[in-house]
Order: sequence, then structure tokens, then C-alpha cells
Amino acid sequence: MAKPKKTPRPKAETPKGFRDYFGAEVAQRKTMLDRIAAVYHRYGFDALESSAVETVEALGKFLPDVDRPNEGVFAWQEADENDRGDWLALRYDLTAPLARVYAQHRHDLPTPYRRYAMGPVWRNEKPGPGRFRQFYQCDADTVGAASVAADAEICAMLADTLEEVGIPRGDYIVRVNNRKVLNGVMEVAGVLDPADPDRFAQERGIVLRAIDKLDRLGPDGVRALLGEGREDASGDVTKGANLAPAQADAVMGFMAARGADGAATVSRLRELVADSATGREGVDELEEIATLLAAQGYGPDRIEIDPSVVRGLGYYTGPVFEAELTFRIEDEKGRLRQFGSVAGGGRYDDLVKRFTGQAVPATGVSIGVDRLLAALRAKGRVGSDSAGPVVVTVMDRARMADYQSMVAELRAAGIRAEVYLGNPKNFGNQLKYADRRGAPVAVIQGEDEAARGVVQLKDLALGAKIAESATLEEWKSQPAQIEVPRAELAARVGEMIAGAAESLEWE
Amino acid sequence: MAKPKKTPRPKAETPKGFRDYFGAEVAQRKTMLDRIAAVYHRYGFDALESSAVETVEALGKFLPDVDRPNEGVFAWQEADENDRGDWLALRYDLTAPLARVYAQHRHDLPTPYRRYAMGPVWRNEKPGPGRFRQFYQCDADTVGAASVAADAEICAMLADTLEEVGIPRGDYIVRVNNRKVLNGVMEVAGVLDPADPDRFAQERGIVLRAIDKLDRLGPDGVRALLGEGREDASGDVTKGANLAPAQADAVMGFMAARGADGAATVSRLRELVADSATGREGVDELEEIATLLAAQGYGPDRIEIDPSVVRGLGYYTGPVFEAELTFRIEDEKGRLRQFGSVAGGGRYDDLVKRFTGQAVPATGVSIGVDRLLAALRAKGRVGSDSAGPVVVTVMDRARMADYQSMVAELRAAGIRAEVYLGNPKNFGNQLKYADRRGAPVAVIQGEDEAARGVVQLKDLALGAKIAESATLEEWKSQPAQIEVPRAELAARVGEMIAGAAESLEWE
Repeated sequence: MAKPKKTPRPKAETPKGFRDYFGAEVAQRKTMLDRIAAVYHRYGFDALESSAVETVEALGKFLPDVDRPNEGVFAWQEADENDRGDWLALRYDLTAPLARVYAQHRHDLPTPYRRYAMGPVWRNEKPGPGRFRQFYQCDADTVGAASVAADAEICAMLADTLEEVGIPRGDYIVRVNNRKVLNGVMEVAGVLDPADPDRFAQERGIVLRAIDKLDRLGPDGVRALLGEGREDASGDVTKGANLAPAQADAVMGFMAARGADGAATVSRLRELVADSATGREGVDELEEIATLLAAQGYGPDRIEIDPSVVRGLGYYTGPVFEAELTFRIEDEKGRLRQFGSVAGGGRYDDLVKRFTGQAVPATGVSIGVDRLLAALRAKGRVGSDSAGPVVVTVMDRARMADYQSMVAELRAAGIRAEVYLGNPKNFGNQLKYADRRGAPVAVIQGEDEAARGVVQLKDLALGAKIAESATLEEWKSQPAQIEVPRAELAARVGEMIAGAAESLEWE
Repeated sequence: MAKPKKTPRPKAETPKGFRDYFGAEVAQRKTMLDRIAAVYHRYGFDALESSAVETVEALGKFLPDVDRPNEGVFAWQEADENDRGDWLALRYDLTAPLARVYAQHRHDLPTPYRRYAMGPVWRNEKPGPGRFRQFYQCDADTVGAASVAADAEICAMLADTLEEVGIPRGDYIVRVNNRKVLNGVMEVAGVLDPADPDRFAQERGIVLRAIDKLDRLGPDGVRALLGEGREDASGDVTKGANLAPAQADAVMGFMAARGADGAATVSRLRELVADSATGREGVDELEEIATLLAAQGYGPDRIEIDPSVVRGLGYYTGPVFEAELTFRIEDEKGRLRQFGSVAGGGRYDDLVKRFTGQAVPATGVSIGVDRLLAALRAKGRVGSDSAGPVVVTVMDRARMADYQSMVAELRAAGIRAEVYLGNPKNFGNQLKYADRRGAPVAVIQGEDEAARGVVQLKDLALGAKIAESATLEEWKSQPAQIEVPRAELAARVGEMIAGAAESLEWE
């Protein structure tokens, strides 16, 4: 007789480029996002949660990587009788969906509409180390406000947000620039034609991306990209913008226009844009933003004008901003490096127009959730209630109801607690489990203790080191263990946890 | 010259069956989920956030609708050079991903592993009224615990959770049953062959789904489905299990086995399962669960044994549970109806085995987030900080910096506040805006007030009705408006909001 065929077992793996987040990771991110949301809320922004799935048509082609605007999304076609269903896709950011939402619901939304959104986005890109195809974004945008007061507000809110989540003043800087200023400089240098701004779109794109790489490539690298292009250490060649040397000099001069203070920077920018109307408008806007922020007390120690900030995205039309963390951390090779950018944004006045035909001014910011969280971890500033539970061990399987009553009492007293639910036979395994769970206290009650109406409390925060190999008798002989009346269980466990918390330094 | 072709504008629409959630909706759901998470956390459950995307292979064919196990997911194929990439899909629930996560990370996870997960899931189904293709689930599961103490814990936690989010005791009941008991009854009736349980798999599936419809179809409807099938009012025919009348009677008897109390129910079930080993095991487990819960004080007013609960899902192998809200609400036709089920779950010992070949006992519960939220709304028990912001109006565009300083002061005092960022020309529009935002207070400072160092505070909670048509002068003449020194802005606004909150009834 033939053997029955076996179905092969499925592989227990996340798809390539995806990952799972456990316990403290989830809790820490949530704590951070809750704090951010509280600031956004205080600024009058309302939550919006749009669907993860959009039509490909609505999403449009605004992926940050302008070299291949058609790629990068996870998309599929709806089945219908004629195989001509809509193409759907997972959102790749939170801005494209906002444009769709605003266009769809604009008659029911207040104008201006301030909204924030937090959630995963998806990119169909080649995964790499630390590079995932699903990640969180956290955005705040104001739609329908043409005034640069809206941009200033976003900058102030960004500074407040960073301080609220735990980045102290002095450890971050919000840099502000204006695309119009750069456009003005490019007009003056003949890289842009004010009468036909689309004519040099490609060159402009290359220039923007080149400037955006200043941090990484330095001035020489950027200069090469403005000219004929650049070959990196691995031999990969990046195409250049092919600007004439004088044009490239003008752009480099723009990037270096930062003066000793905002007023000095503004005055140098004013020279550089000469009589370009766009350029002057941009400088005026920068000046107004600086004035508004200064009036609210946001000085250059928090927010400053910096012409080297351009942001790579093609759709920005005016002010652009970026939050950088200025402290240093060790990289994987032990070298100290500046932490770098954790948020960025700007004004984009054309996104809603795609749907409605009418220009709708909009400005906003997106926080890189994973990067900011990494920064907080590096600074030891992640806070979350991720302490392990008190573990009530099971000495006597027949008295499970008693043990469950104990955890119920502990929980009623607000103490995180669980009963050991594995096979209770090997007591050492229970202690190992408590250790693995990061339990602050283990509760032990055998037959003898039950008869005497007491429980043993083991302070694991103090006794963690011996837990791995201890037998029950060794365990009991440790000084970190005390016997208390059963009736005092919750009160005494509470004291023990409070004591352990006191003796712990801020990690 | 030919006209340049216009690209047609994209439609500003969510895909069919998807929707957006705004402001208070998002905040209310978040508040509810936070409360649920706090209970789960207190019980020792750890958060898990797995990726939204899984391989189709890992997800398997466990969709609740067993009639078409291959359908119902949003899936696409990864592009690779040979068009033979993996098939990926959006998760359709949180249980299938948990099985994958546990199989993948089992050596790094504690055993037992208690985890909770909250997030959207996606179903590729025909959308209908109130039926969406993306919705939230909120699950808690214990993996690796064979003891029914784990099932009892889940039931207790479910009761605690419902009370914590705002369902008072008496307004809900958690019903518990055991699949093994039903299997025992079906063995005794000859519907199941204990030696070859797969033999009657299809009939068993139809029986389960028939019992699960008792609420909706009543005993006669279920009886029809156990026999030859049933034609509904619209003429649609549902296939029956084709049980012999005596067999169908046995199943009906099982469903009606609920006695005056748990002990009476258990004793009737013991008769019904006669000498079926599976059936007896099931009754023993039910009895143990009841004992454990009673010891912790969860009486039949909160958790009871009810043989009519079977849950439709094919993968349950032991205890099953369901939380029902017992109060009545008006349906869309004004008829009073019992609210019904808001959560369900049970033991499923075979899901991890798909991956590892080894059976891993598991049990868990899933809360229907949207239904529970609807219940809380119906009872007026949704709480969230979704009050509108104080709106600082703009009387003098040149003094925007002053207005922004005012909102900065209000926020520093913990008051949600925003400056009007639309075109300030028409003051009436600013008041309409404040109204639309649900602003409790509007702040007004024209040239005259600025010169005198004062601001006007308009109590909108009291004056909302006249806001729509008021001119500035009428507005100022209302008694609900007071003039206060500029320096007292934050303090006086705070008093005004506190006063309004006091005078408001609990909505």
C-alpha cells in the first residue's frame, strides 16, 4: 500500500523584511506615541485613522524615491467578473492618504483642518539590515492654512514634542529653510526658468537630493553631484546635475549661507536671491517664521534657520523643516557619531489639487518613530510600565484555586500578577520562568505554609542571581525571602515592589 | 496646435468596504483599548505586535467561513526574476499570526507565553452596510498551558475587562462550554466516530454552525439545519447536516441542557455524554473551570456554563467561551433587541502543530472591538479627552505673534488651544470655526483690547446657540463674554472650562 502523502509543514517565518515586536518594545513605542499624541492634541490637532488600503489611483506617485516613482508599493488587483477590478495598495506614507481624506470629506471638515495620524506604512523595497518593509510613521499636518503661521506652529510643536518624549533642550535643533529661497538661487544661477519651472525638473531633483546628502557626503561630494556626478567607494556611479561651475558655486554658496544668527542668515540669503521674486518671497517667509517663533520664546537654541536643509521630497513648495538630535552616540564600530535627523516636513500646496483641481495649502511634519525611539533608548529615556508580573508558583496542583485567588487579590490591589500555568512538577522550572518574566517577587505556598496560613515571598529583584540553579531548600534559605501571613499578601508584596523600585537607579 | 491632454483626476474615495475614522471615534476606541490593555497587562500578558503581512503559507486556511477556506484574504505575489516569489497576504485575524510567531520564536519566549495583541485585520469579503473589510481585533491568548486553569483565567479576565471598560456587572454574562462535551454527545448519537474523528468532519462543521445560529434562527431553524437544511425568507437554501431525527434530537437536547445552576447543568451533561471518554473529559473540564472561578468569586452572575455556546470556528478543541451583553438596545427599526455577543474564544491545541509537528496547547479570547465600542456608545459610557480646543481668534493679522503667544501660554497651562489659521478677514467665519471645533472658549483681542492690556473671553459652552449668526458687536454684548486682564488669560480660561464642565451633565 502506498504511504499517504504528507503535506509539507509551512515555514514559521515572517515574510522577508517584516518583523515582530514583543512586550517592552511595543510598550515603549506606545508610551512615546501617547506622549506625542498628547502634545498634538494640546495644539488642537485631531486624530485621523484612515484605512491601510487605498486605491493605487488615489495614492498617486509621490514615493520619496523619485527615481522610480511607480515602484515601491504593495499592490494587487481586486477580483471582479471581468478581471478589471480596481488596483489597491497598502499606503506608503500618511500624507498621500491625508490628501485623499481631505478631498473626500472637505465639506464636513473644519478649515483649516489640523490632524495627526500614527500607524504603520508599507514599502515594497529590498529589505536590508535594519531596513524594514513595514514601519511606523507619526504625522501632524494643517490643511487649508496658507499663512506661514501654520508652519511656525508645526516647528514649535515639533520642539515641544521632542522635549515631551524625553529629549532635553540642547540635545535637539529644529532647522528651517524654504524651498522658494533655493528656487530663487537656482533662478539667479540660471538652473531654473521662472517662466517654465518644469523645464529643469530633473536637474532640480538631482540638486535637491545632492544637498540633502550634505551630512553624509560632505561639501566635496555634494559639489561632485551638482556637476558631473560621483563614484562612491564601491564603484557605484550617481548621475550628476551637470551644472556649470558658476551655477554649482551659487548652490554651494546657498548651503553655506548660515550666519552667526538668524538675522545674519536672512540678510545673506537676501543677497543671494537678488531680484528673484520667488526667492524674495521665500526669504520674507523665513523671516516671518523666525519672528513668530521668537515671540513665543522659541529661540535659536531650539529652532534656527539653516539653508542646508532641503528635504529630498519633490512635493514641498515652501518652508521645509527638519529636527536633528545633536548628541553623539557610538555607532556599530564604536565611533562617536551625531545621532542625526528624527523628523522632517514642510509645506506642500499641490497634493489635494490632484483630486479637486483647486490648490489647497498644507503643511506638516512626520516623525521617524523608530529612529526617535532608538534615540530615547540610547539616552536611557524610554519609559513604560513594562515591569514583569509577580509570579505565584504552584507547589500543589490540587490547590490551583487557592493560587488563583492569590493573583486575583494582587491584581485587585493594582499589582501585575500571574499564576504559573506550566507543568508545576519541577519547581526549578517555575523559578526559571519567574526569572525569565522579570518577576519582581515570587509567591510560594506549599502544604506546610497553607496549614499555617502563611506565604513565602521571594524578592527576585535582590535574589535574581541565585535563581537559575537554586533548589527549593536553598531558595528558602536566602535572606531575600520572607514569610508573611496569607491575609497580608497583597500589602506585603506591594511594599516589596516599592522597595525594589526605590533601590533601583534610573536606567 | 493640439490641446495638451489632461490627465483625469483621481477619485477621492476609500476603496469599497474601507472607511476613515475621525477625531472622537479614534480617541474613544483608543481609550477603550488602553483600558483593555491595562487589564491584560495586570494579568501578566505581554504585548505582541506582529506584522500585518504574512506569507499565505503561514496564514493557512483557518478563515472562520469554512465553506470557502481559500477565499477571504487580500493576497499578492512577490515579484522576483522568475515570477515565482512568495505569496503574501494581509492577516485576517490575530490568532493565525500568533501561531506563526510562537512557532518561530518559541525558544526565546517564556512557557507558558501569555500575550495580547490589538490591531486591524483585513477580510477580502463583499462589503455591506456596517460591514467593513478592515476592522480591529483585540486578543489575549495563553500558549503552552494545557491546564484548564488557563481557560478559567481567560474567562475571569474577560469579565474584569468588560467591567473595566464600562459594562456594569449584571449587564454581561460570560458563557462557557466545551467542545469535547458536544463531541461526546455526537459520538453517543453516532454522528462522530471516536476512532476516526475526521470521517464526519463536514457534518460536524454544519452542526457547529447550526448551533452557533441558535440566537438568530431559534430552535426550529437549528433543527432544520441539523436535518435536511433550511430555506430562508429570501429563498436562499442552506444545506443541512442530514442527521437522523434521533441524532438531531440528541444535539438539540445538548443545547437545552442548561440547568438551574452550574451543578445541575454539569449533571445533565454527564448523563448526555454517557460513556463517551471524550465527553466525560469535557464535563470534568467544565466542572474544574467552574470550581476555579467560584474560588475567585466569579459566580454565575458573571460566568456560567451554557451548552448552547459552541462558537463557529472549526479549530477549537476544548473549552469555548463567549461574552454576551444582556441589556437591550433599539435596533434600526426601533425594536428592542438584546445586544448580543461582543467577545469569544476557546482552546485550540493544533494551530502551532502545523508548523512544528508538535501539539502546543493554547487558549484565548478575541474581543469584537467595534461591537463593544458600539455597546459603550449605546450606554453612554465612552470616555475620552475629545473636547474641542480653546480658539484664539485673529482680529489683527499683523499681531499673529501675540496670538500665538496666547495659545502657547494656554498650552503651557495644560489647556488645549489653537490660533485661528484661516483667512481672518471675516470674523463670523472664525466664530463658526470655533463652533465647529466644539471650542469651549473663544479668545478675542482687537486693537482696543491690546492697548488696554485685556482680552475678551467668550464662553461658547453657554453661548453656542447665538454663535452662528452673530456679528462682532452682538457677540460682545452677550453676557457669556467677559473681559479679563491679559496677564490672567490662562487662569481665567481654565476657570471658565472648569465651570462649563461642572454644569454639564454626564452625556
